[in-house]
Amino acid sequence: MQFTSEQRLDDGLLEREFTLGEIPGTLWTSGSAPAPLILMAHNNGLSKGEPRLVARARQTASYGYAVATIDAAGCGGRRSAADDQVRAELRRAMQAGEPVDEIFESLIGPLVENAVPEWRTTLDALLELPEIGGPVGYSGWTAVGIHLAVTEPRIAAAGLFAGGYVPRAQREEARQVTVPLLFLLQWDDEGNPRQRALDLFDAFGTKEKTMHANMGGHVGTPWFEVEEGDRFFGRHLK
Amino acid sequence: MQFTSEQRLDDGLLEREFTLGEIPGTLWTSGSAPAPLILMAHNNGLSKGEPRLVARARQTASYGYAVATIDAAGCGGRRSAADDQVRAELRRAMQAGEPVDEIFESLIGPLVENAVPEWRTTLDALLELPEIGGPVGYSGWTAVGIHLAVTEPRIAAAGLFAGGYVPRAQREEARQVTVPLLFLLQWDDEGNPRQRALDLFDAFGTKEKTMHANMGGHVGTPWFEVEEGDRFFGRHLK
Repeated sequence: MQFTSEQRLDDGLLEREFTLGEIPGTLWTSGSAPAPLILMAHNNGLSKGEPRLVARARQTASYGYAVATIDAAGCGGRRSAADDQVRAELRRAMQAGEPVDEIFESLIGPLVENAVPEWRTTLDALLELPEIGGPVGYSGWTAVGIHLAVTEPRIAAAGLFAGGYVPRAQREEARQVTVPLLFLLQWDDEGNPRQRALDLFDAFGTKEKTMHANMGGHVGTPWFEVEEGDRFFGRHLK
Repeated sequence: MQFTSEQRLDDGLLEREFTLGEIPGTLWTSGSAPAPLILMAHNNGLSKGEPRLVARARQTASYGYAVATIDAAGCGGRRSAADDQVRAELRRAMQAGEPVDEIFESLIGPLVENAVPEWRTTLDALLELPEIGGPVGYSGWTAVGIHLAVTEPRIAAAGLFAGGYVPRAQREEARQVTVPLLFLLQWDDEGNPRQRALDLFDAFGTKEKTMHANMGGHVGTPWFEVEEGDRFFGRHLK
């Protein structure tokens, strides 16, 4: 893991860019004492530099966690032109109200499968840093969170968002998830059918799961949910 | 309003019993400065002295609210023998898996209609006390909360619990509720069908509503939800 740049933010947080082989990442830390770690992934391969993710990461780090994100294979700056064509077709089909399951599956299924090993490699490297002590939580993209929670025993708790469309493999894996979950649902998420998200929440194998449902569309999650996330992770990681 | 007894609890809270005409009540306060008020009602006419309600009230008062509860007409120590017969029949029918809507309606419908005016009378008296400043929140029994929120403009926010069975009149009033809501759902509440609770959450007219769903049965709400309730009321009453 090589740090390529760093900046000290106004509130004292240290924000560092790193690379790990082909994987670019960002790490936020608030001090030098070993802190619990939260891996934060943006839904469906959006960039690690996307402002909403960065705002959430900084706020979360200010609560005393180390927070890390990466552009995994096929995500953010590593998106392929072929995938972007499928994305455009997915968007068109959704807007036209056509069935999208097959397009979604062909795009997101492999994306999740390829992303999770890179998250695990990143986790190995992060846990060698003296300022990161664990335990480890996960926050964000539901499908990656499910596959990571099932394959990576170091994940101790997960906050998941927007579980309406999730690849088949992860819908099936859901009942194997046994770590505590906070599941965020936007009641009128235009890209995530409500009933599917409710069914997914029901399917998780863990006994300690909580759903927070709020009004509005996909990007309308109230800001106070970042603070609620802190208390969820606080119960399980601190 | 006459205070009939008081005790100082270990954590400094003052717990006072009062009567207001026929209405017996309990008031918890944590100081002498004017505090926001939370009216706390137990579901379906259970006693104001029920340990789970008392524990919740004390914890909530320790966050800096004045908290009040009453045995409204037909509730707690004011239950009629006739109502108790209907309650027994309701319980039997539920356990036998028979339809219970009509029995429920005949018992709970009038209970809610008769209880709410007494809550409003109590509110008038409480707001005259120097240690209570408002604004006013409501916490607990869903049907009473709906009817109170619709008829009493001083209610500024409401935390509602167990909305599976709610009288017809309140299901219809739900879309007139416009105050911020925190709606607690127990995912496997044996006495409250999940889909009906989800439908009720959907029906509320307010734009600022959040549902917290947790695993387990009717009495299994995790204790951390009391703290979450504090933060909800903190956003709207403090």
